[in-house]
Amino acid sequence: MSLNAIMKPRAVAVVGASTRPHTIGSDLMKRLLEYGFTGPVYPVNPKGGVIEGLEAYRSVADLPEGVDLAIIVVNSKFVPETVDACHAKGIKGLVVISAGFKETGPEGAAFEADLLAKVRQYGMRMVGPNCLGVVNTHPEVRLDGCFAESLPERGDIGFVSQSGALGGGILNILKDLNLGFAQFISIGNQADIDAQAALEYWEHEEDVRQILLYMESIRDPKAFREHAARITKKKPVLALKAGRSAAGASAASSHTGSLAGADRAADALLKQAGVIRELGLKDLFNSAKAFSNCPIPKGDRIAIVTNSGGPGIMATDAVSAYGMRMAEISESTKAELRSFLPAAASVKNPVDMIASAPLEHYQRTVETVLADPGVDMVMVIYLPFLGLKDTDVAKALMDIKAKHPEKPIIGCFMTENRFFTELSDMKVTVPFYMYAEEAVDAMERLNRQRLWMERPEGVVPAFEVKKDAVRAMFDRVKSEGRTELSTRESMEVLDAYGVRTCRSTFAKTAEEAAAAADAIGYPVVMKMTSTTVSHKTDVGGVRVGLASHDAVLENFRDLVAKLEAKGLAEGFEGVIIQEMVVGKRETVCGIATDPQYGPMMMFGLGGIFVEALEDVAFRLAPLNDQDAKELVRSVKAFKLLQGARGTTPAQIDRVEETLLRLSQLVTDFPEVQELDINPLMISEKNGEPIAVDGRIRIA
Amino acid sequence: MSLNAIMKPRAVAVVGASTRPHTIGSDLMKRLLEYGFTGPVYPVNPKGGVIEGLEAYRSVADLPEGVDLAIIVVNSKFVPETVDACHAKGIKGLVVISAGFKETGPEGAAFEADLLAKVRQYGMRMVGPNCLGVVNTHPEVRLDGCFAESLPERGDIGFVSQSGALGGGILNILKDLNLGFAQFISIGNQADIDAQAALEYWEHEEDVRQILLYMESIRDPKAFREHAARITKKKPVLALKAGRSAAGASAASSHTGSLAGADRAADALLKQAGVIRELGLKDLFNSAKAFSNCPIPKGDRIAIVTNSGGPGIMATDAVSAYGMRMAEISESTKAELRSFLPAAASVKNPVDMIASAPLEHYQRTVETVLADPGVDMVMVIYLPFLGLKDTDVAKALMDIKAKHPEKPIIGCFMTENRFFTELSDMKVTVPFYMYAEEAVDAMERLNRQRLWMERPEGVVPAFEVKKDAVRAMFDRVKSEGRTELSTRESMEVLDAYGVRTCRSTFAKTAEEAAAAADAIGYPVVMKMTSTTVSHKTDVGGVRVGLASHDAVLENFRDLVAKLEAKGLAEGFEGVIIQEMVVGKRETVCGIATDPQYGPMMMFGLGGIFVEALEDVAFRLAPLNDQDAKELVRSVKAFKLLQGARGTTPAQIDRVEETLLRLSQLVTDFPEVQELDINPLMISEKNGEPIAVDGRIRIA
Repeated sequence: MSLNAIMKPRAVAVVGASTRPHTIGSDLMKRLLEYGFTGPVYPVNPKGGVIEGLEAYRSVADLPEGVDLAIIVVNSKFVPETVDACHAKGIKGLVVISAGFKETGPEGAAFEADLLAKVRQYGMRMVGPNCLGVVNTHPEVRLDGCFAESLPERGDIGFVSQSGALGGGILNILKDLNLGFAQFISIGNQADIDAQAALEYWEHEEDVRQILLYMESIRDPKAFREHAARITKKKPVLALKAGRSAAGASAASSHTGSLAGADRAADALLKQAGVIRELGLKDLFNSAKAFSNCPIPKGDRIAIVTNSGGPGIMATDAVSAYGMRMAEISESTKAELRSFLPAAASVKNPVDMIASAPLEHYQRTVETVLADPGVDMVMVIYLPFLGLKDTDVAKALMDIKAKHPEKPIIGCFMTENRFFTELSDMKVTVPFYMYAEEAVDAMERLNRQRLWMERPEGVVPAFEVKKDAVRAMFDRVKSEGRTELSTRESMEVLDAYGVRTCRSTFAKTAEEAAAAADAIGYPVVMKMTSTTVSHKTDVGGVRVGLASHDAVLENFRDLVAKLEAKGLAEGFEGVIIQEMVVGKRETVCGIATDPQYGPMMMFGLGGIFVEALEDVAFRLAPLNDQDAKELVRSVKAFKLLQGARGTTPAQIDRVEETLLRLSQLVTDFPEVQELDINPLMISEKNGEPIAVDGRIRIA
Repeated sequence: MSLNAIMKPRAVAVVGASTRPHTIGSDLMKRLLEYGFTGPVYPVNPKGGVIEGLEAYRSVADLPEGVDLAIIVVNSKFVPETVDACHAKGIKGLVVISAGFKETGPEGAAFEADLLAKVRQYGMRMVGPNCLGVVNTHPEVRLDGCFAESLPERGDIGFVSQSGALGGGILNILKDLNLGFAQFISIGNQADIDAQAALEYWEHEEDVRQILLYMESIRDPKAFREHAARITKKKPVLALKAGRSAAGASAASSHTGSLAGADRAADALLKQAGVIRELGLKDLFNSAKAFSNCPIPKGDRIAIVTNSGGPGIMATDAVSAYGMRMAEISESTKAELRSFLPAAASVKNPVDMIASAPLEHYQRTVETVLADPGVDMVMVIYLPFLGLKDTDVAKALMDIKAKHPEKPIIGCFMTENRFFTELSDMKVTVPFYMYAEEAVDAMERLNRQRLWMERPEGVVPAFEVKKDAVRAMFDRVKSEGRTELSTRESMEVLDAYGVRTCRSTFAKTAEEAAAAADAIGYPVVMKMTSTTVSHKTDVGGVRVGLASHDAVLENFRDLVAKLEAKGLAEGFEGVIIQEMVVGKRETVCGIATDPQYGPMMMFGLGGIFVEALEDVAFRLAPLNDQDAKELVRSVKAFKLLQGARGTTPAQIDRVEETLLRLSQLVTDFPEVQELDINPLMISEKNGEPIAVDGRIRIA
């Protein structure tokens, strides 16, 4: 259901409006009126009276018709009856600012659940409870239903904040940051409306051109992923998900009363959904500024134009650290630059016009470099020098931007605060940063959005598998009251889902053994099985590297002979003939289940390195082919797979396929709680990934 | 020689002073006078006239006595004769602002070398050429010998900038950053005075309490390291070394005309010298602000006091990411907090006073938490809420700081730019940041300085080694016109320096072989050597895992028998009996030589993982025991050494010793250009590190 009743109401009632200064009920009325809501505002207070110059209604029932939104600030215990009254009045939108719900403990959670049931039953939508309110800066709406310090700035951002105070703090500094909101929703306890609901609503709101999220928890990860992955292809979505660390998550949990999900799962989700994750507010705003003022670039080739070498070097360092490219300035561009720049200037990238560069050099250099087809983005660095004014350079850049809107222009102006304050009173069209590294961060985000938009839609392949066999296996295991599958059972499940497992067969005679080895392929390992003999080594119970049919025959006979000679033949059952996987590279892959986010696929470097090097990565299931590609490539050990130091290049597509098949397994059988293939050995013979050992646990 | 003549001159002459506006010769005069230099300022211009109200002298020779410093802004070709004239006048200090030297190419470099020779011959000291000038804000000096836009702010920072324009840019924004300089030197081409000279001078300047360096190259790494390592124990030294990336280094090189050293060497040097390296200017200033306003903490236990949950969580995340600790608030502190905070507040760390916290809650909470003996630093977060003014909270914190100066208090105020502008007009005593992550960065730097100051002085051990043997070996190799040592020669060198190498002996008979094996210890590997037999495998030419005296005898005889049977006995020389090192963990260690920084010690994870995982680290030679400890612990694989996954814990002290012995080797023999021990195997038997293969290249 649309959020129009809340975000674009015809009329707004404030239930709990107050005349007492510095109360929410008073501040809210002030903001609504000051900001100039385009419809009527009705204060409701049982005592009546005049609030902010308006006659208060004594009850919701007394309100005129046409109210779409009620902003509720009464004591929590009166909220349910207020909602009843709103329903009776035909009000469809609620913003419940009142606290005293889930955040207070189990009792409050139950109270909130009852409230939500009521809201759902009435077919209403609700923001909150325990929130700061909502804002819509659209000129036809001008709704500041929020009790923050400042009036909101108009801009292109849709912002969701799970923290009320933080949301207010942000509203407060927007102007200084040259940023503005289209809409803002403080979701509070997110009983009904959460980040995902906002995303869905903003998908089709034209004036919301980018979405910022501050989240401490993701309520419905699956739905969030689905919607976000679609919307991020249309507009950038940036998220600050706090509670990354165990300590932070514990702080988040005490603070919002919602369980903080494991961060690696959240991180995987955001990656797979194309959401740009920021680790701090500074970065969040820096990135937003870039998206507000730049087109998505066509590539990652960056040209730097500067009047000071130092910041140019620092910017180059930062570009390289991100793995982006410094543009190769073409010879004709260089020639043109040389035609007007002084001899001491450098016309290679970074283009250093030297400190004394006048305004005309800035203009002509930027236009010339911008026109070079080998340049995708231009970063312009300005340091004050002998009378050239920062604002004049800034205006020149904005003029150039107006003429050439197709490539991002980013300003790095190492100048006084005053400049940024002056900008905040201007309509800026170019993002300006103080420091080189901030400007490069911004370009990286633009480039990341480009890469995401260019990324093919992923496909979840449907492999032909033996589902029934696995069904039967799991049923049997469950019927035996077990949750752990044996190694053999686990390998059978993997086999049924088409994972290439290490082949092995049981054989009772020399001929059977040799035939089994023929079928498996050489070399093989022969392992004796016996009910009585524990001293396997005395008789050569494990024989490795058997390379031929005859060798198997011979060794089987030798084994039997030794057993008989030592009087150990009793209890001898036969041998397991096992494929001998020769590999130097062990990987691990598997499934881990997060209580909130569900099953995740894991891939990484195996062996003794797993814990020490932590070179593993995660993605949420179900995995599509793009996710699998990225998962495999996101570990450092990927280079090893490609065939470092004389090793056989791994069949990487088969590694991806293994992960995709496991994903299908856990999608088909959600009872799979844990699955480890350790090692998934990369065969030196042909680079095939082979599951040598496996372990599965089901619910 | 002291820099007093330059930094604390009795009188200053400006040679090349000018009346033409917006020239350096004019701006410089303006700044000197405006800032109120406490001694006389003498303009020198061959045309005479009145400059900034002062009668110009037509030549240096005409100047009155008592001039200590000449600031020279004449065309470069007149610089040498000006220096002659200054010398004749008894002037000891020079600041050569004029460009046209090394930065222009080889001819300019020769011109600069001549100038330097002259300066040295005259016993003068020189800043520049090609620089922005110098500043000393001490009230008894007030020297602004710099042509930056703004007048400098007084503070406790000594700043060296290799980039002139950048230095000027920084002077320009200091006030906004709440930072001030004690002294500033733009070293330009650093012909005479470089960062190290400034460090040495500032070591004993009381009012310089921290030192900031912007460097693109380190001219004399060895001397820099020696002095910096001493000075960093007294005052924090922060460095921004640009040219980290290959692209950045190339940009730096074209820009300053000096060769950019390999960054990993620079990084090692800064670490070993206790210099805090910053990657961007933003971080540099953030850290400087902390050191200007905070004592060095006693520990890393951080308490957070906030009126908004969100930033508290983000700060907690950032603290955890750095591996610092969130303080455990004591029960008695909690009880006291509960006595005045509302029920909805959280008294565990982060202490969340909730949004409505009034000023008194800030005051009392911060004082209470600060008094907790389990707290080393307090971070205070403020978000605007219903009328509580940011400046009032800031002042309250400064009052508390005045009363309790012993623990760092850091402010994170997410409020308007206006607040920071207001601060810039105040005498602040607490560092204030806008974002949680910046505040945590600052605390991490304070903590890092603490760790460095607590770090024991390193000792370079002197092992007893067979230096003569190595001398003889290198002489022989050189006399043969070689630079590469054979494996055997390399192993002999390692052995001579006490590195535990894989033992091996040549033996001609079965008895010799068995005796050799007895001496080496079992198991051993036996490798045939023959001048004729290439098909080693046919006769079992390599036999591994021989576990006893008898096994060696038997196998030697068997080998000879097989050779005879196959008619291959001719050419048989004997066998190499080699210790069989059984290990699961391969490390690498060695020596790499950087053309500028000299020999570096390398340590890391070996085997096929070297390139892919890049888990290697570097330190400059000579290595002291502390450096060795840190080097070994700075790679991720260190966890593996400790004995992960059932492996034998490595003898880590022996690994360190190996590195220290190699460091002694390269210190004794600077001709060692490259040395690789790959692998340095960790024995599963007893955790001993054993050099299994080695390679040495000499100059």
